[in-house]
Amino acid sequence: MEVSDLVEMARAGRPRAVARLISMVENGSPRLREITALLCADRPRRARIIGLTGSPGVGKSTSTGMLVQAFRKRDLRVGVLAVDPSSPFTGGALLGDRVRMQDHATDPDVFIRSMASRGHLGGLSWAAPQALRVLEAAGCEVVLVETVGVGQAEVDIASLADTTIVLLAPGMGDGVQAAKAGILEIADVFVVNKADRDGTQATVRELRNMLALVERPWRPPIVPTVAYRGEGAEEVADALDAHLAYLESSGELVRRRHARARDEIEAIALAALRSRFAHLHGDRRLDALATRVLDAGLDPYTAADELMEASG
Amino acid sequence: MEVSDLVEMARAGRPRAVARLISMVENGSPRLREITALLCADRPRRARIIGLTGSPGVGKSTSTGMLVQAFRKRDLRVGVLAVDPSSPFTGGALLGDRVRMQDHATDPDVFIRSMASRGHLGGLSWAAPQALRVLEAAGCEVVLVETVGVGQAEVDIASLADTTIVLLAPGMGDGVQAAKAGILEIADVFVVNKADRDGTQATVRELRNMLALVERPWRPPIVPTVAYRGEGAEEVADALDAHLAYLESSGELVRRRHARARDEIEAIALAALRSRFAHLHGDRRLDALATRVLDAGLDPYTAADELMEASG
Repeated sequence: MEVSDLVEMARAGRPRAVARLISMVENGSPRLREITALLCADRPRRARIIGLTGSPGVGKSTSTGMLVQAFRKRDLRVGVLAVDPSSPFTGGALLGDRVRMQDHATDPDVFIRSMASRGHLGGLSWAAPQALRVLEAAGCEVVLVETVGVGQAEVDIASLADTTIVLLAPGMGDGVQAAKAGILEIADVFVVNKADRDGTQATVRELRNMLALVERPWRPPIVPTVAYRGEGAEEVADALDAHLAYLESSGELVRRRHARARDEIEAIALAALRSRFAHLHGDRRLDALATRVLDAGLDPYTAADELMEASG
Repeated sequence: MEVSDLVEMARAGRPRAVARLISMVENGSPRLREITALLCADRPRRARIIGLTGSPGVGKSTSTGMLVQAFRKRDLRVGVLAVDPSSPFTGGALLGDRVRMQDHATDPDVFIRSMASRGHLGGLSWAAPQALRVLEAAGCEVVLVETVGVGQAEVDIASLADTTIVLLAPGMGDGVQAAKAGILEIADVFVVNKADRDGTQATVRELRNMLALVERPWRPPIVPTVAYRGEGAEEVADALDAHLAYLESSGELVRRRHARARDEIEAIALAALRSRFAHLHGDRRLDALATRVLDAGLDPYTAADELMEASG
């Protein structure tokens, strides 16, 4: 089948075409460039991108399921992109409870896809933008991007999303730990899940105190939820709407999307240069330079200069 | 003071010179290149690099402290590089208990430094190798690199370290969650900390079952610890020694270090190219391309081509 036909079918909302295109994008298909050009050339709508991140065990996938339901209630077409390697959507032999998302398995207005997040220069910056374009082409009005924190992935998701939800759970010192980890800087909305457990109030208070120390135009709301019972779903959806309204009125939405396009172009250019290094010399030149750094006192900066001269 | 004097003082094991050089490296000092060349030109010894990673709350810093003590018992000079943004060594207003590591604050054979891990192309790949060279120059025979998991940071640390410890704690489904997150692939040694808590045996069993599914030349041992009481310290140190012996006898140590040198050279070359994009056009070209991607249906691959042509 022609790639242009696949793109047409995705635009018509055909789930298998959507799935196939995302797989092609994720696997670095040789048609990636063509697919991207087709998706860009006539992009019908632009989705709201909502990132959802948090440590393992806080209930990311259950919360994603809850939000899908909330957005469906508002009659929006929803996409889910799970770039969380620990997500039950990701597949693989170790994974158990796909059950919850199967509530939506037969809903033609919900598209759920998982992506591997591995890759040298960050899988997210590389393939996720194209996967988002596929979901936008399929008419998704909201896309939830689920990824595991804390670390580089969390920074990536913040640059990818319009709104970033940071999910915490009471206990295990998550509140403070998360704050230490720079999560304060990236969260637009805090969700404290498992709010039927001891310590919820303490976690909320801790977060509130820390937020009070930071002067920012948008103060992230803190929403308690019990995701597996669907408690707090409407409140989270309202908080997301409020943040969207802020983004639009402040001009921040345009700014974020522009920054995202810049990052994407730059990442593609760097990846192209990187493969140019490898292709020109079949990796042998880099191997030889690495050996000289290890054994002959060559410093890596001079080695990098030699690599670039050779790839000129 | 001349940079060459600083490097000499670091070689003599003077802690303030070590601290100053690491700060310069971390802050991207204009002398970075010169410092690196000096460190490389006459590198006296090569340290064992041990990575330690795990989710927030599993007790990374306590475990690091415990291991410092174990290596000091073996009369080794030890460096600690905390690239974990949630580490109590990292500093900043929110951070509490630096207490434990202060046991070592007056020991001239222990060097402890924290580094920020942020940065677009991964702070670790950029500055950490130079910081490790500083600690090696200061005569450290072992360097513990502490970083938070799960995510990209964990992959980075695996490529940086000779041996990677993955730290878990019982409960909160950490065992399975961690395994899902691809931790199985990077762990050389598993430590189940807080082993005085309920669920330790379950976590160990879970890990063991998962490891049994994977066929690899090195099967990671699983060591229970109670780090705050120092329980299990010797067992972890023994497991690390066993892995080092494996690395040496299999040729894997040389292979890992060579791959690390390659990665470093490549990262430096890419960073240089990236700043060339920015400098040549004062970012205006990239801005204009981003706008065309957002508003005019330009695809990002074509935009990247234009960027590279312009930066030729």
